[in-house]
Amino acid sequence: MSLTESPAIDIAKAASSASRHLATRSEVERNEALTALHDALRANKSLILEANARDLQAAEKSVTNGSLSQSVLKRLDLSRPGKYDDMLQGILSVRSLKDPIGKVTLRTLLDDGLSLEKVTCPIGVLLIIFEARPEVIANIAALSIKSGNAAILKGGKESTESFVTIANVISEAISNTRVPQSSIQLVKTRAAVSELLAQDSFIDLVIPRGSNDLVRFVKANTKIPVLGHADGLCSAYLHSDANPEVATKVVADSKTDYPAACNSLETLLVHEGVLRSVLPLVARALIAKGVSLRCDSPSKAALQQKLSPTEAEDLHDACDSDFDTEFLDLTLAVKTIPSVSPITDVEAAVSHINAHSSKHTDVIITESEDAANVFLKSVDSAGVFWNASTRFADGMRYGFGTEVGISTNKIHSRGPVGLEGLTIYKYLIRGSGHRVGDYFEGEGGRRYKHQNLQILESDV
Amino acid sequence: MSLTESPAIDIAKAASSASRHLATRSEVERNEALTALHDALRANKSLILEANARDLQAAEKSVTNGSLSQSVLKRLDLSRPGKYDDMLQGILSVRSLKDPIGKVTLRTLLDDGLSLEKVTCPIGVLLIIFEARPEVIANIAALSIKSGNAAILKGGKESTESFVTIANVISEAISNTRVPQSSIQLVKTRAAVSELLAQDSFIDLVIPRGSNDLVRFVKANTKIPVLGHADGLCSAYLHSDANPEVATKVVADSKTDYPAACNSLETLLVHEGVLRSVLPLVARALIAKGVSLRCDSPSKAALQQKLSPTEAEDLHDACDSDFDTEFLDLTLAVKTIPSVSPITDVEAAVSHINAHSSKHTDVIITESEDAANVFLKSVDSAGVFWNASTRFADGMRYGFGTEVGISTNKIHSRGPVGLEGLTIYKYLIRGSGHRVGDYFEGEGGRRYKHQNLQILESDV
Repeated sequence: MSLTESPAIDIAKAASSASRHLATRSEVERNEALTALHDALRANKSLILEANARDLQAAEKSVTNGSLSQSVLKRLDLSRPGKYDDMLQGILSVRSLKDPIGKVTLRTLLDDGLSLEKVTCPIGVLLIIFEARPEVIANIAALSIKSGNAAILKGGKESTESFVTIANVISEAISNTRVPQSSIQLVKTRAAVSELLAQDSFIDLVIPRGSNDLVRFVKANTKIPVLGHADGLCSAYLHSDANPEVATKVVADSKTDYPAACNSLETLLVHEGVLRSVLPLVARALIAKGVSLRCDSPSKAALQQKLSPTEAEDLHDACDSDFDTEFLDLTLAVKTIPSVSPITDVEAAVSHINAHSSKHTDVIITESEDAANVFLKSVDSAGVFWNASTRFADGMRYGFGTEVGISTNKIHSRGPVGLEGLTIYKYLIRGSGHRVGDYFEGEGGRRYKHQNLQILESDV
Repeated sequence: MSLTESPAIDIAKAASSASRHLATRSEVERNEALTALHDALRANKSLILEANARDLQAAEKSVTNGSLSQSVLKRLDLSRPGKYDDMLQGILSVRSLKDPIGKVTLRTLLDDGLSLEKVTCPIGVLLIIFEARPEVIANIAALSIKSGNAAILKGGKESTESFVTIANVISEAISNTRVPQSSIQLVKTRAAVSELLAQDSFIDLVIPRGSNDLVRFVKANTKIPVLGHADGLCSAYLHSDANPEVATKVVADSKTDYPAACNSLETLLVHEGVLRSVLPLVARALIAKGVSLRCDSPSKAALQQKLSPTEAEDLHDACDSDFDTEFLDLTLAVKTIPSVSPITDVEAAVSHINAHSSKHTDVIITESEDAANVFLKSVDSAGVFWNASTRFADGMRYGFGTEVGISTNKIHSRGPVGLEGLTIYKYLIRGSGHRVGDYFEGEGGRRYKHQNLQILESDV
């Protein structure tokens, strides 16, 4: 690992070269590098938190003068309870995961002496760009090394102090291992990013982690495939038979557990039939947590009737754009789904979600398995949940060890992306002089056997 | 299926809407549509071949006046022995494949009453653009319907007659099934393509099948992910211990079985130690099949010494660009790998391939398992073969039923792409009011169980 200021093409070439060597490193060698990385970050915790405190101090000033949002400040804070330990634990979790490389996922006997294998391998070179959230460096370094990918990392200017300190700590740790030095490179300048985004012959995947603006900028300025999500516009739908307690718990948690996160709730769809029964309970819980509600007319009328005048102060009129807005704050848009028939109503909620959501995570609150199944099958999002908080959409919570990001793409990787999303596969054929020309219909022609061969426990 | 001349945005919206409905169709309903498609194409074979003959006639004129290449003409010909039957058989093979949709590939108990499932689902809307190769329409229609994806198809002007006839036949067949009419739409004009490439909010994946120019044009003109390969620059490496018979069989088949195909051989790397032993045998077999060799100095000198003067007439000097050229014809570039040590020599061949190949398919000819393993692990291509023809890189030969294309991308799908490449997945969570806020370290906090649950035979 090295902090570099070389020209972009040299960085990209060095990464490409390192990736070839890293791809041939054994699981043991890659795991040893993870151990070194973990131990160094643990040993240097106070050093790193001090650097982070300097970043926070500067960021707080920027928040005060309005040039930085509160949500970025929250993401920057590495001293938030549990965050540093989560980061360290993430590295060990990644290390303990099964080797994602060299897994045989298909084995076919094409003909006598001619076998086909589909084997997982690293993608190659990753470019990861992030803004706040300095703990991402450790996550990404761990995931990249474990999956045999070289990575080029660029931190945001808000986290410069944390970034440089962590970079130096990791750099020294990795230099004593058998993972190539250029497997992980760090770049500091914004100018370098634009040039790196042009290196599509050496860089295989870009992963922007940060604001929607960053992701949009990256997507608009590179031919390299981009893994990420520009928005996390998550919706919950309260169906006509929603259990009030379930609804209250799930919606309040989805909205208020960590409003700055991409998997927090932004839109609440409410079936007309529960406007005066379930919705007021949900709204009361939200308002108690400081949430401001932007309601359409029917939902506002119902709530004004049921809530106290003090509570009703947090009700506002929604405009159309509120249903396309990721607030990332204690604000929630509320929309009514008119009552027609149970399944039709679910379909109306699904239509709204498919038209307005960012294909991230959406949830239905219902006691009906039929209604839930329609929703689960029809909503076109990475996560579709029944009676559970949108906040569960997360690699750690899914049990992936840690995550490289959440993808709202429709190809390659979707939802929380762990190790698997950083691998691809290749097909290996082993023969002994086999020719395609020998296979044909009619006399003397050979036929393919296409016999599935067993995949052993030791293959995966 | 319908042949449409509506504005691009209407076509894309109709496809998006159809895709939502198609995604909820049962396997039986989708298979019924495939049966209808197959039967109609079989019943109308002579009608379609007549239309194809008209295309061929026009294409032959273009070849004569130099405006069309011989290789495009070959791809256009639907009457080539076995081609039509292969097309029909491909539909039945796809139909007989397991349903790729709704497969549970991961099931985790997150906590009591809280389960996570990873389930395969369609990608959504595909835009497939092809030039010659009219049989692609049937392949793509079958694969799209089977995988629950809506598809928009655009054929090339060379295959217009075949395209329109096949479109009409399939259109009528599908109209009698329960697959939505707009699941498969066909567009005729080139102008429509440019507009469709801009519909990134409705179209999820573009699959160009045709010339390198087409693929490059598509990649340069859309933000939609592109599945495909601009080049098929395949190499073979004859190692120092290459078996002469294996070498001759594999290289001749790779180069001459179907030179216009993307999986045919373009570069031959020869270990210095076999320049005068194995190479002359290989060269003789190639020259007998009409192949012209473009050799570097050492290989040319060796061959001139070993071949007859008549044979030597097909030897030419290679220039640098020959090793970056996809000839798609009976021409082969030959390069010598200097002898240092067995493994170093393999690595030198690997380095040449990783720098010059198009990451499609590459092969080593060796009797050494060690040398083969280095090659299989280090070559960064979709297909890496040992002692077998590059021509095996094909969805049918791999046993995928049929293929939607061959990908040289590094993400999502690599190599021959069958049904699986047209699916993605979503994560489903089922709970009963579960909140993320209840999970924390310390007293009263819940812990995730992350218990892998069994995946049943009926799930996949």
